Amino acid sequence: MLTLYYTPGSCALASHIALEEAGAAYNAVRVNFADNEQRGAAYLAVNPKGRVPALATDRGILTETPAILAFIAQSWPQAALAPLDDPFAFARVQAFNAYLCATVHVAHAHKARGYRWADDPAAIAEMRRKVPETVGACFELIETEMFLGPWAMGETFSICDPYLFTLAGWLEGDGVDIARFPKVADHRRRMAQRPAVRRALAQEQVHGA
Amino acid sequence: MLTLYYTPGSCALASHIALEEAGAAYNAVRVNFADNEQRGAAYLAVNPKGRVPALATDRGILTETPAILAFIAQSWPQAALAPLDDPFAFARVQAFNAYLCATVHVAHAHKARGYRWADDPAAIAEMRRKVPETVGACFELIETEMFLGPWAMGETFSICDPYLFTLAGWLEGDGVDIARFPKVADHRRRMAQRPAVRRALAQEQVHGA
Repeated sequence: MLTLYYTPGSCALASHIALEEAGAAYNAVRVNFADNEQRGAAYLAVNPKGRVPALATDRGILTETPAILAFIAQSWPQAALAPLDDPFAFARVQAFNAYLCATVHVAHAHKARGYRWADDPAAIAEMRRKVPETVGACFELIETEMFLGPWAMGETFSICDPYLFTLAGWLEGDGVDIARFPKVADHRRRMAQRPAVRRALAQEQVHGA
Repeated sequence: MLTLYYTPGSCALASHIALEEAGAAYNAVRVNFADNEQRGAAYLAVNPKGRVPALATDRGILTETPAILAFIAQSWPQAALAPLDDPFAFARVQAFNAYLCATVHVAHAHKARGYRWADDPAAIAEMRRKVPETVGACFELIETEMFLGPWAMGETFSICDPYLFTLAGWLEGDGVDIARFPKVADHRRRMAQRPAVRRALAQEQVHGA
């Protein structure tokens, strides 16, 4: 049995949705960031990085959203969440997710986690100030260059879609109007209707209540 | 025929080494960052992100180091650069590379590319000041938790090794003494002796001259 460690509102939602899309059997365990549980000894024993998501398997722990998403796609091939038999197409999927992980999520993280890269409060405030610009530029590239439609990678739903849905959900809080990106906004609306997405969101709300 | 776009000293070296390890036929094309060629129209037509690496294939462009590395491993399976038939082991490889991409490389980027996340020169200077601490903390985690030895992921050489070698090569410039991390330092020495690594480095030096 798999166990997904998550906190509501985090990028762990992408893995949570993917597990639902795959029809996987799993438990979801909320890590309480308000109490800094992610830095406590019990959770650090699960994931020494002190972050979510982490996916506990019978063979050990997996971390990092792009790796977990590819694992889910490969472990439930019947769910057809990635082009597993086409290295080029799979690499395009992975490149999309790597951009979300290393550029979009990182741009967003400068709003509330600037302390990772600076100590001076003025510098942290300056990072926060620039977030609407940097996150907006990321989604401009997604809208104009990367998003193929109707799904992120074209005709076929993939592990890119839960991840894009999750990070697009941060736009409003980052001070970026999603209406600037019609394809992304429409994708977000369609994603929100999917049963797997509704189940994952409902589960996080219950546990987060 | 593949074409790898790179600039010397960049993370593109990881893909360059992996192509050599795979025995792939490819061209290597230097992008001249000193002339800001990566932001010019010709290169943006190749990669709208204006970054390296980019790998041009017969089917289109691939970007993002973790995606390119997995593509190389899957396209040359006989080189045995990743555990392709084991989703869990493959995910561990991918998680290692995602950490290098989204945490280690990002920490390093705050030294010379702080303008990505702030405009105020004082904030950019503050980011630069903290780089030895943040990059040092990343390699502490790699040394104590992630590096299995003798190779990054244990007994078998993988696409994690060229990537770790590449980023460990930035430590001195980031003001971090690699001697703090004996396993990483020893790995770096052994990697530097591999014929594929020597060929990739020699090619980048010739083109970079």
